[in-house]
Amino acid sequence: MNKPQIAIIMGSDSDLPTMSKAAEILDMFEVGYELTVVSAHRTPERMFNYAKKIYSRGFKVVIAGAGGAAHLPGMVASLTLLPVIGVPIKTASLSGIDSLYSIVQMPRGIPVATVAINNAQNAALLAVAILAIEEKSLHSKLKMFREKRKLTVIQKARELEQMGVKKYLANLRTA
Amino acid sequence: MNKPQIAIIMGSDSDLPTMSKAAEILDMFEVGYELTVVSAHRTPERMFNYAKKIYSRGFKVVIAGAGGAAHLPGMVASLTLLPVIGVPIKTASLSGIDSLYSIVQMPRGIPVATVAINNAQNAALLAVAILAIEEKSLHSKLKMFREKRKLTVIQKARELEQMGVKKYLANLRTA
Amino acid sequence: MNKPQIAIIMGSDSDLPTMSKAAEILDMFEVGYELTVVSAHRTPERMFNYAKKIYSRGFKVVIAGAGGAAHLPGMVASLTLLPVIGVPIKTASLSGIDSLYSIVQMPRGIPVATVAINNAQNAALLAVAILAIEEKSLHSKLKMFREKRKLTVIQKARELEQMGVKKYLANLRTA
Amino acid sequence: MNKPQIAIIMGSDSDLPTMSKAAEILDMFEVGYELTVVSAHRTPERMFNYAKKIYSRGFKVVIAGAGGAAHLPGMVASLTLLPVIGVPIKTASLSGIDSLYSIVQMPRGIPVATVAINNAQNAALLAVAILAIEEKSLHSKLKMFREKRKLTVIQKARELEQMGVKKYLANLRTA
Amino acid sequence: MNKPQIAIIMGSDSDLPTMSKAAEILDMFEVGYELTVVSAHRTPERMFNYAKKIYSRGFKVVIAGAGGAAHLPGMVASLTLLPVIGVPIKTASLSGIDSLYSIVQMPRGIPVATVAINNAQNAALLAVAILAIEEKSLHSKLKMFREKRKLTVIQKARELEQMGVKKYLANLRTA
Amino acid sequence: MNKPQIAIIMGSDSDLPTMSKAAEILDMFEVGYELTVVSAHRTPERMFNYAKKIYSRGFKVVIAGAGGAAHLPGMVASLTLLPVIGVPIKTASLSGIDSLYSIVQMPRGIPVATVAINNAQNAALLAVAILAIEEKSLHSKLKMFREKRKLTVIQKARELEQMGVKKYLANLRTA
Amino acid sequence: MNKPQIAIIMGSDSDLPTMSKAAEILDMFEVGYELTVVSAHRTPERMFNYAKKIYSRGFKVVIAGAGGAAHLPGMVASLTLLPVIGVPIKTASLSGIDSLYSIVQMPRGIPVATVAINNAQNAALLAVAILAIEEKSLHSKLKMFREKRKLTVIQKARELEQMGVKKYLANLRTA
Amino acid sequence: MNKPQIAIIMGSDSDLPTMSKAAEILDMFEVGYELTVVSAHRTPERMFNYAKKIYSRGFKVVIAGAGGAAHLPGMVASLTLLPVIGVPIKTASLSGIDSLYSIVQMPRGIPVATVAINNAQNAALLAVAILAIEEKSLHSKLKMFREKRKLTVIQKARELEQMGVKKYLANLRTA
Repeated sequence: MNKPQIAIIMGSDSDLPTMSKAAEILDMFEVGYELTVVSAHRTPERMFNYAKKIYSRGFKVVIAGAGGAAHLPGMVASLTLLPVIGVPIKTASLSGIDSLYSIVQMPRGIPVATVAINNAQNAALLAVAILAIEEKSLHSKLKMFREKRKLTVIQKARELEQMGVKKYLANLRTA
Repeated sequence: MNKPQIAIIMGSDSDLPTMSKAAEILDMFEVGYELTVVSAHRTPERMFNYAKKIYSRGFKVVIAGAGGAAHLPGMVASLTLLPVIGVPIKTASLSGIDSLYSIVQMPRGIPVATVAINNAQNAALLAVAILAIEEKSLHSKLKMFREKRKLTVIQKARELEQMGVKKYLANLRTA
Repeated sequence: MNKPQIAIIMGSDSDLPTMSKAAEILDMFEVGYELTVVSAHRTPERMFNYAKKIYSRGFKVVIAGAGGAAHLPGMVASLTLLPVIGVPIKTASLSGIDSLYSIVQMPRGIPVATVAINNAQNAALLAVAILAIEEKSLHSKLKMFREKRKLTVIQKARELEQMGVKKYLANLRTA
Repeated sequence: MNKPQIAIIMGSDSDLPTMSKAAEILDMFEVGYELTVVSAHRTPERMFNYAKKIYSRGFKVVIAGAGGAAHLPGMVASLTLLPVIGVPIKTASLSGIDSLYSIVQMPRGIPVATVAINNAQNAALLAVAILAIEEKSLHSKLKMFREKRKLTVIQKARELEQMGVKKYLANLRTA
Repeated sequence: MNKPQIAIIMGSDSDLPTMSKAAEILDMFEVGYELTVVSAHRTPERMFNYAKKIYSRGFKVVIAGAGGAAHLPGMVASLTLLPVIGVPIKTASLSGIDSLYSIVQMPRGIPVATVAINNAQNAALLAVAILAIEEKSLHSKLKMFREKRKLTVIQKARELEQMGVKKYLANLRTA
Repeated sequence: MNKPQIAIIMGSDSDLPTMSKAAEILDMFEVGYELTVVSAHRTPERMFNYAKKIYSRGFKVVIAGAGGAAHLPGMVASLTLLPVIGVPIKTASLSGIDSLYSIVQMPRGIPVATVAINNAQNAALLAVAILAIEEKSLHSKLKMFREKRKLTVIQKARELEQMGVKKYLANLRTA
Repeated sequence: MNKPQIAIIMGSDSDLPTMSKAAEILDMFEVGYELTVVSAHRTPERMFNYAKKIYSRGFKVVIAGAGGAAHLPGMVASLTLLPVIGVPIKTASLSGIDSLYSIVQMPRGIPVATVAINNAQNAALLAVAILAIEEKSLHSKLKMFREKRKLTVIQKARELEQMGVKKYLANLRTA
Repeated sequence: MNKPQIAIIMGSDSDLPTMSKAAEILDMFEVGYELTVVSAHRTPERMFNYAKKIYSRGFKVVIAGAGGAAHLPGMVASLTLLPVIGVPIKTASLSGIDSLYSIVQMPRGIPVATVAINNAQNAALLAVAILAIEEKSLHSKLKMFREKRKLTVIQKARELEQMGVKKYLANLRTA
């Protein structure tokens, strides 16, 4: 693996099924990353040390996922100068609105770049876009990624137009 | 002033008009307290040190007020074994729902005793009730406080019944 | 069992699967408790008597769980000087937002120490933290409890770092 | 005044500007009422006694207004067999959504007839409609009240149609 | 069956599983009722005629259930002088908040007595309480109903206290 | 004025300051309209007659504004085959969320074309767009209206770019 | 199929199970339509071209469904003068409230005719009502459609009245 | 001014009082920027061209502010590979929750880095943090900025501790 540039952290290993999607995207873009569990509430000292050292360890962007009273992204952002991307994890009672508000509503001075509830893929794509400002090869890969997705949509549109609604819908259901 | 038993902290001095109501209650009960500004996001190291030492400094309860992505109460709770009471501060855009969710929705393991939005008085009364478990004199004071408020309501009820709605309402408006 | 210091009450026995988690925590900490059903709406006299006598019966903290228009925690708080911890129970239609607002938004004068929706564990841990202010042995147990949870997180983090995302995720799914 | 049939109660005299609108409606219908302050949280014993005796004192309907964690209507409903109408009072932070949920979301067994936030007039009109089931004279008055309001709307509609938008709007602004 | 005094109407027969609970309560109280489907949007003329005649047909209270943009209770209330009780039906997307707001937020002049989302039982109990103002026998039945429910709670409390949490919980799960 | 093609109705003349903006747009497009007050709740018969005859009177589109439990747009839609555009009026307690849900969440079979809270201008522009499907001259006017607004934005952008932020901001404040 | 007058577009083929209901309605009314996938975010150029040409291609109304940060309906509305009907698709985390707000809260100048969450049928019925302003045959079909649905309700009401609640409910469950 | 690296755009010049705060931050950091008005809905072609060319014009980050159905940040993000930071502007009816959901809830593939409602300062600070990954001098400035804010908090804390609550509060009010 390439030298890790992105740190992916989460408050609990129960967030891994969601947060691993960020890792998949970075794998696809061949961007090195470190992924681990750092709990703001259960391991506050670990969080402090982790966040304090993340810059000097050579990382460039932090992706932090957390749910409920989600303090991890904001606390890490207050402890490092690196850009921090927050992923609000969906919760059982409040569907992630609690996570979203806890992450996005940061006070003046300490921003967290917040993405949609449970959308760890987009956190990774945002990290890639940030690195791509300076890395031309990553810019090209991002361009191809977008292009490919665009073609997929267009191809599906063509198939739908040709098959008609009923047949396409039937295929969709058996897929 | 008595030896401080309660620490009242807030994320910003702009929270003081709200949080000072907690101090007023503690003054009334002659419970010693310390009141200061500790910002989770702008002074994370200060918060760490403050929270880590609060127990050994002889405090018994922490009252923490914060607004928006309000991480102060939960982070202090993760750094001390003392009970932490959280006051969600009302915010301009989301009226304090963001503060409430950020404070009350703590994950399993680290509770924050949350009171109503902007209700710093109740935070102080809860702290008093906690101390009153062991301090009989405080229990008596709390009893009198409640009794006095009860009598105020009953007196108002009597006045309203005697004056009638219109006159009482007129008095209320000129008061 | 030790002399009960904590009263755990709930509005309905259908809340028991949630509220029993508070009992489990207290069992773990060897803190004596009483657990019963007290309905504010179906047994108001029982609630009055229960709340009125709870102090003289030697209890120190009340944990009350209720859902929907959840009046039990607040009404008990108005009838005793003991600290009352409220657990908003998740509801079918409003996911416990109704319970949360009914419990946390208490008026000036009568606080309820509110924890997260359905988080009865935290209610018990808060009660333990309150008792631990004076009971040194409980303070030590709470310290160990936190330490143990911290180690669990760190161990999981290490395993995740060593196994890699895919393998850990596979283990997680089969666990 | 006629023998009081309706009890109008509220949690605080600060609710009087809103709740007095119920009294105005009952005055208009010449329905006797009693209006007073009964706080569920500050005067729970008074509330118990009040609610327990309200039936034997000859009242027929209770109108109860309260704000925030609004327990008065539901608790009174649990203590009397009379129909209880709840008025959710608008609140500073949550605009009365807290009051509404605390009043309307009653569990199976104890209903509260809830009206719109701050709409004490409708509470009184509902009480009148309930009494009018058996009192024919009240039924006639209610019919006339509705008829009069209907005519007011129709007259305004005619004026607006004749004046045109601009002139009517100008009149509206100077009114 | 007794002469029907209560009309139970709903916007769609898909609301019947919920609204039939109102009928069960009325059956228990031996209060006569009529139950049918009246759609404000699909059968507006039927709704108009139904609502206009409901008083002269000898009914005393209307219970109306509807979901989404739930106009049935409010429209019927505008067309009859009888008290109308509204039941907000839970919806797929907004969990019945849309139904609740559409029913409870009636403008000044036309109240709808709103109960909790999906709580048709309470609508029936409220109707019974309204009739019981004048019908002594119904008052007695309501008293017994409440007493019985109270005893059930107390009995469950006793069983829980005697069995202990674990055994009771096991029984609850197998029940 | 041209033969009226659009009916603008509102639940109360207090909605006129908002709804008159629809009239201003139609004046600008020289589209004839009728504007009046029709209350679903206070004048249900008038609403029925109005809605039933609106098609045969030659109207083509109805714009209906209402607030709170806003039934006017949906009820009119159920009584006419003409397209009905609903304007949710902002309310004091719930900011128009109640109006929005009451208007937009119509059940299958009877749509209401809902626009943004208080956005009566857009209701009129939507009505114009509907008429413009067949009226070429209206299509041209709509094109010019859009073009003009586009130019205004571009001109403002140019001014801002030339003036710089501070000067433009100063002008904005004195404007 | 008839010459397509309605364009049904959606942001993703995963919206097809919902949006195909619009097609079913148009099939029933024998109104020609085109149905395809146009993603505002993944195929912005395609969206631009599609929207820009939709008028000159002879279409009369656009139906656009999208979920989450749902920009498709509003962006298409800004690129064509044709009326655009927006269908907010229900989402996993926010149940379609995000989709609803993203579609309905359009700024002054560019309306989107918004229907209920997931209610693609109503989008199609609204499109039919718009076409029916000028097409008399469509007006007649719409009248029959409404009449048929009305009869279905009335028939169900009759059956329910005759069968009684229990039997009807049993049939409903086995249906 | 330095070569512009950041593009600050907003949907309307009425957003300037909020968005100009981003410019102030960039001025403080001596980071070059361009600030202009680009409306997704009123000037879609301008938005397309602007977004398409922003990368080749040498910009590195886009900050986009918009309110209501806020499509500007997401649409620009779909048209450029540069990282886009979205600022949800507070709105009159929904306080910016509509803006927040429209910006943050982007679908998989196209992220928008969302900051708190109206928090344009944080958008600029996030942009600075992104540039600071590679620009060491900017990293140093950001460090100093944070340090300075930290010192301000600590100084305020000291003053508050020395003055006491009442005096500090009095000063705060006259400030």
